Order: sequence, then structure tokens, then C-alpha cells
Amino acid sequence: MEKVDHIGIAVKNLGEQVTYYTETLGLKLLKIEEVPSQQVRVAFIDAGNVKLELLEPMSEESAIYKHIEKRGEGIQHVAFGVTGIRERMQELRGKGVRILSEEPSPGAGGAEVAFLHPKDSFGVLYELCDKSGKGDK
Amino acid sequence: MEKVDHIGIAVKNLGEQVTYYTETLGLKLLKIEEVPSQQVRVAFIDAGNVKLELLEPMSEESAIYKHIEKRGEGIQHVAFGVTGIRERMQELRGKGVRILSEEPSPGAGGAEVAFLHPKDSFGVLYELCDKSGKGDK
Repeated sequence: MEKVDHIGIAVKNLGEQVTYYTETLGLKLLKIEEVPSQQVRVAFIDAGNVKLELLEPMSEESAIYKHIEKRGEGIQHVAFGVTGIRERMQELRGKGVRILSEEPSPGAGGAEVAFLHPKDSFGVLYELCDKSGKGDK
Repeated sequence: MEKVDHIGIAVKNLGEQVTYYTETLGLKLLKIEEVPSQQVRVAFIDAGNVKLELLEPMSEESAIYKHIEKRGEGIQHVAFGVTGIRERMQELRGKGVRILSEEPSPGAGGAEVAFLHPKDSFGVLYELCDKSGKGDK
């Protein structure tokens, strides 16, 4: 948990929201990317010290689609930047925190990601995000 | 909008959550403070580049109490660090963003704060947080 890498925000319409963040709030769009494994289209907005990750569902299979159905648009998760994601997952499991997957999944920007069970974090969905290239395989 | 100053998280029991963030996640508690004007007790957790602001309601009058009643515990807002808060408020109003108060209010840590209408930010409650001492009065 070295730092917060990004804040993930569930959005219905990426184009409309990118306009809001860039033209209204004056922030910079870094890039737009598709992550087929998570069924999302992602716009990265530079907020100085962290990125805002706008997540638009590509299908009803996406966790983001389900989030919007259930809770509407808004913040979906907060991602901690880590190195050695498998080690961190193991360590947290040892402390009684449930991890939503056995292994890390491919996330945006070539990262490996895993999510903590939001019930164990009192309603917050935290992601572990490892960009060191290969986790600690 | 120079950077994200903190992420505000609505919590029912500050003590229990401080233990989670420090002992389980291994983050550092910076301080605990009461903000009577917002009717909250706040624990600041150091997450490296940003702070996590755990907000426990002190009464049913608190916006945090209402958030928990309506949506449960979890992320309540994201705060952008700004200087010249009145100028920023004016600028955003000029771009059609509603601000929830006419004037900034006193926030934690001696800051002046104001909130953007979450409908204008597609479901995210953004705070402007000015710690420069006196805003731009």
C-alpha cells in the first residue's frame, strides 16, 4: 500500500464525462483504453497526484454495469499501488481479509489487479494494483 | 484543482476502522479531530500521496449520518486541494456547476471547504478544500 494509484468511477457515457473533467474541471485526459477482460472502456484523467479512472461498461457482464444498475454512477473503487501483488494478497488473507479472486487479473495499463471484499473494508471496494510488470510470480 | 487532497469515507465506528486501516492495511494514523461545524469526528489516515479521511457522525444532523442512513458506510466524497477557493467557486458557477453553499465552510484541519452538487459531477460528491489559511478573501 505505497500510495493511492487511482480512484475508479463508474460512468454511463465516457465522452460526456471526459468533457466535464477536462473542460469544466480543467483536468487533463491522459488516455482512453479498452480492457476487454473487465469489459470496460477507461479514460484516465490526471488529477495531479492520483488518476481518476472513468469506467464505462462495454457489456452487461461488466462489474461496472452492475454497479450502475444497483447504485448509479459514482465512485466504484479506490486502488492502492503495490509491488508484489501475490505477496500482498497472501498477507491480507493471513489477516482475515477476503480477496475477490484467487489470482490477480489483468487491469488497465498492463497492471495486475485484485480486489478486497468490500464487506471487510466497511463498504469500500479497495483494489490492489501492481504495475511492476509481472507481480511477484 | 491542483491535486486530490483526501478521500472522505463515511464510517459508523471510528475506532474499529482506525484499527483496520492501521493494523490490517498497515497505514499510519495521522490524527483524530472533531469538526463541530460538520458534526463529525475525523481520523486522518496517511495513504502516501493522499489522506483517507474517516468521518464518524457526531449527531443525526451530520451529512455523514444521512449518507450512512441512505447508502451505508463507504466513500462519501473526494476533495480537490485548491487555493483561492472563492475564485474557484465563482469560476465553476460560471461554467454551470452548482455549489452547495454560498460561502465556504470551516472544514477539518483549519481548511475552508465547499462542495459541488453531485448531480453536476455525475454522482460524485467533490469537495474544494483550501488550506492556504484564508481562501482569497
